[in-house]
Amino acid sequence: MQGEFALIDELLKPLAQGFPGALGLTDDAALVDVPAGKSLVIAKDAIVAGVHFLVDDPAEAVAQKLLRVNLSDLAAMGAAPLAYLTVIAKPKDLDDAWLAGFASGLGLDQKRFGLSLIGGDIVSTPGPLSLSCTILGLVEKGRALRRSTARPGDVIWVSGTLGDAALGLRVIKGLAATEDEAFYLVERYRRPEPRLALGQRLLGLAHSAIDVSDGLLADLGHILEESTVGGRIEADRLPISAVAHGLPGWLEAALGGGDDYELLFTAPESATPAIEALAGELGLRLAAIGRIDTGPGLEVVDATGAPLTVEAHGWRHF
Amino acid sequence: MQGEFALIDELLKPLAQGFPGALGLTDDAALVDVPAGKSLVIAKDAIVAGVHFLVDDPAEAVAQKLLRVNLSDLAAMGAAPLAYLTVIAKPKDLDDAWLAGFASGLGLDQKRFGLSLIGGDIVSTPGPLSLSCTILGLVEKGRALRRSTARPGDVIWVSGTLGDAALGLRVIKGLAATEDEAFYLVERYRRPEPRLALGQRLLGLAHSAIDVSDGLLADLGHILEESTVGGRIEADRLPISAVAHGLPGWLEAALGGGDDYELLFTAPESATPAIEALAGELGLRLAAIGRIDTGPGLEVVDATGAPLTVEAHGWRHF
Repeated sequence: MQGEFALIDELLKPLAQGFPGALGLTDDAALVDVPAGKSLVIAKDAIVAGVHFLVDDPAEAVAQKLLRVNLSDLAAMGAAPLAYLTVIAKPKDLDDAWLAGFASGLGLDQKRFGLSLIGGDIVSTPGPLSLSCTILGLVEKGRALRRSTARPGDVIWVSGTLGDAALGLRVIKGLAATEDEAFYLVERYRRPEPRLALGQRLLGLAHSAIDVSDGLLADLGHILEESTVGGRIEADRLPISAVAHGLPGWLEAALGGGDDYELLFTAPESATPAIEALAGELGLRLAAIGRIDTGPGLEVVDATGAPLTVEAHGWRHF
Repeated sequence: MQGEFALIDELLKPLAQGFPGALGLTDDAALVDVPAGKSLVIAKDAIVAGVHFLVDDPAEAVAQKLLRVNLSDLAAMGAAPLAYLTVIAKPKDLDDAWLAGFASGLGLDQKRFGLSLIGGDIVSTPGPLSLSCTILGLVEKGRALRRSTARPGDVIWVSGTLGDAALGLRVIKGLAATEDEAFYLVERYRRPEPRLALGQRLLGLAHSAIDVSDGLLADLGHILEESTVGGRIEADRLPISAVAHGLPGWLEAALGGGDDYELLFTAPESATPAIEALAGELGLRLAAIGRIDTGPGLEVVDATGAPLTVEAHGWRHF
């Protein structure tokens, strides 16, 4: 137990200094005041070494991914970051340098995204290193973006590019790529960019939103299911990075790969000019990739409108 | 992943029905409104099979302990429960019946303590079953009980009885006891009683509070350290259950055993009549066990005022 307290003192307490309600991590709980007119938005995720990240990933990047995956949940609701809590379940053989790197990664991203640590715990485990994060954000009352509010006729949009993270993971596992390509793709896997500014600006513009964590088709599937609608995606409109385009399996990665943490959202046709203007303002690609219809089901078509179908070796013409 | 969604649908979604902001667990995050004049209180804890609970413990009891340990953190701040989120990191060989039992335990305690599940995730792990909980409560702004606000002259109080949980763990591990004794002590270990009503009633009466999770001396040590004061405990005033009193090691268990989740608090002498009346009203033993002084340090004395000291075999006269 002494070890736990010493680690909390040295590594975690400095991360809590910017938030008075964290009480310096000395109490049983933290205090959070929510301004009038705002709702608190709260999400919780866990990642396990060997399952959600690789044991050899740099500790800073693991911390950043943990935070960013959670920040992406806030982005998908249109919320602004406020604070987070973390639990580190630590195997005995994990060295203190790894934890110091982890804390350093948290510190970098705290500053960048404007939030503070307000609670944390370090426990020991006979299993693999496991990390969890509870994130808190604020959104105007009654305005949070949802999955269940897509409407027939909505344009389906996605931010950034798709498939890079899945290809980055394949590069780490041995897929051949040039040094520049590998760097770009692996960074996209390790340090996804939560689309916070976009999410907040979509309040009042978009009808529904989700972040692409499980893969485009799976996450669009969540919107369709919760909204009781259908949809149609045009494969040649998917935003693919130049790097991904040169590699085998890019279409499967774009449709089915997860971990991109881009925002997938639907908006009425009338919002298109505003969304295009927003893309310019944020310097962020926003691609219209399809339409919501009355459904049911999700169809993926090629440039001629012919359906694509998935086979063991990937997506192909029907 | 299908397994995860199916488990969430079947087991966790029913637990979220009472809280509209949980959005039926269908979105990326939950929404929480905090009434004017209240602060949100938030705590996060994790427990790992083989470390914090035993693999053979009944699933219902594990769920209840997870919730109660967190509810105890709210109690220590004087907060009322509102909602919680949970992450289950599940080894492949854990059967669905265990998870069903776990969800059933959560359901029982949700009803009893008046809170709802508002977020949850199930992830897989190659390690042992690991469970984490983030709990939310509400307290009047600026009135939360703290560890850092004990003052010299305060009476040190503790609720309930001490040492039962540590003895319960020893019974599970083989300590001889009668069937009735074993049942009582093991229940105290498995299903501690968070002192929520007491915590809320101590607002305005107590100067400082903490829950006894690490053991009386360790937790009192936290109060003394954070408050920069000292203290003196009279060992013969410790509240010990009749069952514990008959067993070897009861004094060590009361002073150093953890897991009791009783409230340890300090209050000015002038509050004594109100605290005694509160004990009667709540039907809960509240024992004055010592005094805060200017310190530094913590002294444990016997009935004659002679200091006790700890040795390898336990506490003994100096």
